[in-house]
Amino acid sequence: MRLRNVKNKEQIINSSSYLIKYPKEYKGKWQIFFANDNPIYLEIGMGKGDFIIENAKKYPNINFIGIEKYDSVIVRALQKLENEDLINLKLIRIDAKFLDELFFHEIDRIYLNFSDPWPKKRHTERRLTSHTFLRKYDSVLKKEKKLYIKTDNTSLFEFSLESLTQYGYFIDKVSLDLHNSDVKDNIMTEYEKKFVEDNMKIYYLVVKKNN
Amino acid sequence: MRLRNVKNKEQIINSSSYLIKYPKEYKGKWQIFFANDNPIYLEIGMGKGDFIIENAKKYPNINFIGIEKYDSVIVRALQKLENEDLINLKLIRIDAKFLDELFFHEIDRIYLNFSDPWPKKRHTERRLTSHTFLRKYDSVLKKEKKLYIKTDNTSLFEFSLESLTQYGYFIDKVSLDLHNSDVKDNIMTEYEKKFVEDNMKIYYLVVKKNN
Repeated sequence: MRLRNVKNKEQIINSSSYLIKYPKEYKGKWQIFFANDNPIYLEIGMGKGDFIIENAKKYPNINFIGIEKYDSVIVRALQKLENEDLINLKLIRIDAKFLDELFFHEIDRIYLNFSDPWPKKRHTERRLTSHTFLRKYDSVLKKEKKLYIKTDNTSLFEFSLESLTQYGYFIDKVSLDLHNSDVKDNIMTEYEKKFVEDNMKIYYLVVKKNN
Repeated sequence: MRLRNVKNKEQIINSSSYLIKYPKEYKGKWQIFFANDNPIYLEIGMGKGDFIIENAKKYPNINFIGIEKYDSVIVRALQKLENEDLINLKLIRIDAKFLDELFFHEIDRIYLNFSDPWPKKRHTERRLTSHTFLRKYDSVLKKEKKLYIKTDNTSLFEFSLESLTQYGYFIDKVSLDLHNSDVKDNIMTEYEKKFVEDNMKIYYLVVKKNN
């Protein structure tokens, strides 16, 4: 995602209490970090943060962690949070490939919203539903594993259905048109709001694995 | 499927060598029946037979069995076969719910093409991808189980993705638009030809289970 450069980007990033600067220190200790035993939900590639911020407001008894690798994007989320006081939300600026250095069987749920489809075959393993990433999620998630996926990209959706079920996940819920489905309480991302305005269909997928 | 009544329907049905009158006699003995050890592929709900007849012509080293419960439909397939001499194709007039009385671990592959979606919730178990039927397929199919599914019905497709993976199948191949996919050698059903003329998308699914 390309964005105009934000002035004082470094200052915003360095001063926000929402951004965890040294997240690897908390590996295996996130419950202690949050000082409660509420579930922890993780969004990988949270972009400008609308989805995770609205979730954190709506569900105060769940802890939310958003990760995002781009400075220019995460700073937008931090700006939105400047006047908020959400103790159940933290953000981390990191590439998802380092995920297994951050968490150890302590995440209850992972959200993948409108992930990069990496359409070229040679980039298959960069897709967030490739086996490379599913192996990382195995060490990040608790025993009962749950992934919540939204995408508008047909190829990524088809790839994900194959990759996930071949890895041992089963489909708990699928919709080829989320906004005309029986799924309730959907919280939209920035992208999703635009897609819905344009009457585009959103694919929705919840998969589970029991070990 | 409603069709105009065919004259001499009973006569055609009773005289065709393609129709097996007492199929339960061959349970566990289909290899002996075909007098070879070629794979046996089964189409459930073969309708007017275009798909299975073209398959039988194209793949002489595979045995094909089509089942269909409606007289008025199966007779159309029998008429098409009147001038054909295909020793690798047989048809059975029966309801799919009796499938496990016909076969015992001797089918290599099941095709479900444009099956009745049974949209009402109280009819869920009548859908050919419900667990009621998947249990029957377990005793019909050989150890390595394979189902090949085509449908134009979104609700049936979504239901099938959930039901199949919850039952232990994984997705070997999926396409949300078969006729614009990398799937080769697709043979079309009667329905499918109409759908393609109308530019409708066809969902395609191949699932496997290893026991």
